[in-house]
Amino acid sequence: MEKERAYLDHNASAPLLAEAREAVIAALGETGNASAVHREGRARRARIEAARRAVAKLAGADPARIVFTSGASEAAATLLAPRYRMGRGEIRIGRALVAATDHPCLLEGGGFGPERLVRLPVRPDGILDLEALGQALAALDRDEGPPLVACHLANNETGVIQPVEEIARRVHAAGGIFVVDAVQAAGRMPLSIAATGADFLMLSSHKIGGPQGAGAIVCASELLMPAPLIRGGGQEKGHRAGTENVAAIAGFGAAAEVALQRLAGSDGLRRMQERFTAAILEHVPDAVLIGVEAPRLPNTILFAIPGMKAETAQIAFDLAGVALSTGSACSSGRVGDSHVLAAMGLGHLGSALRLSFGFDTGERELAIFARALAGLASRRPGRAA
Amino acid sequence: MEKERAYLDHNASAPLLAEAREAVIAALGETGNASAVHREGRARRARIEAARRAVAKLAGADPARIVFTSGASEAAATLLAPRYRMGRGEIRIGRALVAATDHPCLLEGGGFGPERLVRLPVRPDGILDLEALGQALAALDRDEGPPLVACHLANNETGVIQPVEEIARRVHAAGGIFVVDAVQAAGRMPLSIAATGADFLMLSSHKIGGPQGAGAIVCASELLMPAPLIRGGGQEKGHRAGTENVAAIAGFGAAAEVALQRLAGSDGLRRMQERFTAAILEHVPDAVLIGVEAPRLPNTILFAIPGMKAETAQIAFDLAGVALSTGSACSSGRVGDSHVLAAMGLGHLGSALRLSFGFDTGERELAIFARALAGLASRRPGRAA
Repeated sequence: MEKERAYLDHNASAPLLAEAREAVIAALGETGNASAVHREGRARRARIEAARRAVAKLAGADPARIVFTSGASEAAATLLAPRYRMGRGEIRIGRALVAATDHPCLLEGGGFGPERLVRLPVRPDGILDLEALGQALAALDRDEGPPLVACHLANNETGVIQPVEEIARRVHAAGGIFVVDAVQAAGRMPLSIAATGADFLMLSSHKIGGPQGAGAIVCASELLMPAPLIRGGGQEKGHRAGTENVAAIAGFGAAAEVALQRLAGSDGLRRMQERFTAAILEHVPDAVLIGVEAPRLPNTILFAIPGMKAETAQIAFDLAGVALSTGSACSSGRVGDSHVLAAMGLGHLGSALRLSFGFDTGERELAIFARALAGLASRRPGRAA
Repeated sequence: MEKERAYLDHNASAPLLAEAREAVIAALGETGNASAVHREGRARRARIEAARRAVAKLAGADPARIVFTSGASEAAATLLAPRYRMGRGEIRIGRALVAATDHPCLLEGGGFGPERLVRLPVRPDGILDLEALGQALAALDRDEGPPLVACHLANNETGVIQPVEEIARRVHAAGGIFVVDAVQAAGRMPLSIAATGADFLMLSSHKIGGPQGAGAIVCASELLMPAPLIRGGGQEKGHRAGTENVAAIAGFGAAAEVALQRLAGSDGLRRMQERFTAAILEHVPDAVLIGVEAPRLPNTILFAIPGMKAETAQIAFDLAGVALSTGSACSSGRVGDSHVLAAMGLGHLGSALRLSFGFDTGERELAIFARALAGLASRRPGRAA
């Protein structure tokens, strides 16, 4: 018989919401290029514009300030690049500053070479070191052009929430551009571009229960815009060429609507986080819970089991019916140490186990997880069988 | 009652094939990030690899030489850029040469500024002027780095097929890189990267009956590769970061399989092309058929009705139940003169009507089109009502 599975890897890719699935399938039932002027084309266009309004609402933004992309990595590649426009003038960014715990799509510098990239340290609790940020900004050569600072709002491994408003103030005081990676925060905590202080947000559809293949750049104003990464057709007001993926965008919009409704009940996530944490500590009393000293997303738990490699534990969980991951899943099955742990001064742990879930996660998943963990704990070295 | 529609705009976006739809929906029914190592992730990965084999087969290529992208415009942006790698060494491309009738995603120069972009003229029949290509290649300053030449295999407006083997010989003799835009050719004529002589092909899923949101770069070798446009996670062997859009890729693979099977019966397309052409000439005996002196795709007809603006005719067709377009649909409803016609010395026509269809187009569509055209022709200025 097929073993029951608990999918606890929402931060890698959340299950597709029923509403998003319906929107995708409805869009798949239509034919046409959204840029075509015939009836079929106009119907496609209408779906995109409805999704734009929904995604804008989730980000507390003006729908006219949303640029759809194929995903957050494309959004990052567009934003983390030296060429911007301010009105009709071109701006050349001097250096890019990223947080040491950022996602690889920012951490690797995008369009900036290593010589123009500064990695900012985080404190042991995972929060960006604001003093180091201030020093790095002060040390910049202003003749090089304004700086660009990119930082996540919530970390994908630990769930740690950054004080982005504080960061924004410092970046803007230094005349810089501030990009906030809101991929993991969206749908899990209230979000508004104005409240973050960001010039740009990055969003991903499949992290909020929409389909893979859609993302967005949310812009604070129309005046300041990055140079397009993909040029050609005039789609997305010239900011992103290429035939629009209508089905994915429609699904993204539907997921954004649901995410916004569910946020009202995000206490449910917090309660499940407490219960998962209790289960971890019941079976592994010496478990190391990471990032818990800082404000954290209510859906993410990063933990280490002393004496057991995270990769080994991850495989054991998988065999026992639990899908979770060791840090980020973005490296094509490549298993390696977590740069997030290293940046937090926890490099001796190597990597850890990330449990991430959603609003539909409940008793069933908790029971499967607890059973798997109990089995795992009983086989730890130095324990009685 | 709803008027019966004939969708004759396949070159803008082909209707989703039933097989592709099934593959998309099956993939939507699964959860997970294809880079995750748990069971869910590995199942996603398997779908991508199956699609890779199918797409490779359609292009006569090695599956290991396929890089999936979000579409052909992203593939173009990746390929039409100055930074390449040859093994472990970096190559800086000097100039990019594109055909004057290329799609805007190539024509606008991608990562090359106007000062480093050369537009090659075409002859009145739409074929690239090989003499001009030879002169342009000979005139290059070799100290600038090798040139990159990008040209379509089949034109999206006229269907004209370029002598890419000839072009490849000249580009390679000049030490250049040759990129072939096979977006409109794939599935409509036999395709093999070796036969084209190209170093790279660009493909699009939604032009062959797959879903929107997937495309591919097909590489002749692993040695020569463009710098990645989107960096971060190690997806696609590091050549394209970002969580894979599994559903779109799976649909692309299914469409590629069907396209390959159907190619055996491409005589059917040619017969429909003859019948549509006969219908045009029956109702508009003075119609101007464009690009018919050169080898052409069997699914495309570009024509002008003397004395009637193409934009006006397109709207009348739409109201009469026929979806077709005036040239390329890639400019967000922007109506303008066709750069393809201008390059062929037919700028006085402004733009023309593009009728494009597929293997499922038959008597029904032909009848709706002929009826619509008859109505339109009866209202031409200077005709009896």
